Amino acid sequence: MTHTVFFWLRPDLSADDRAAFEAGLRSLLAIPGASRAVIGKPAATPKREVIDDSYDWALELDFASLADQDVYQVHPIHTAFVESQKSKWDRVRVYDFEWA
Amino acid sequence: MTHTVFFWLRPDLSADDRAAFEAGLRSLLAIPGASRAVIGKPAATPKREVIDDSYDWALELDFASLADQDVYQVHPIHTAFVESQKSKWDRVRVYDFEWA
Repeated sequence: MTHTVFFWLRPDLSADDRAAFEAGLRSLLAIPGASRAVIGKPAATPKREVIDDSYDWALELDFASLADQDVYQVHPIHTAFVESQKSKWDRVRVYDFEWA
Repeated sequence: MTHTVFFWLRPDLSADDRAAFEAGLRSLLAIPGASRAVIGKPAATPKREVIDDSYDWALELDFASLADQDVYQVHPIHTAFVESQKSKWDRVRVYDFEWA
């Protein structure tokens, strides 16, 4: 399965706040259990009406099972990230999809 | 980079229409150029307010470069899929993100 998260940060954040968010996001990549873990920013692909490029950061993790994703959710690095950074986002949207 | 697409299908589609959509979506996985290509459906992860599980299908392709994604967009299998299946979706949302 793939766990996909998009973050829209508060527009009033300082550069330091944004850097701390990015560092926190990057810390999630070290959590064991994911077979693929990436973070990214909207790509400069040609603009199309169907593309949403309004978010600030994407996070994506592949897991072999739903149970592995559940374990990730309660990992101390993940809970520390949410607690320390959640005040910085306006909106977060998660898409969890199971491969078919 | 990752090219992520979510499809919301028309609720009135027949089972045959849905099967043809799925077959078309699956045909995209054979397009060369992606280092990772998966399709999937909303996973049964624990419900949370931030999760959007209202879509019918997800498609995700990783490309080594933005140029490779541009090539994919105009591949005959992709254009045939869009032409033959676009009447079946109510909404499509694309997130293209560049790894950071």
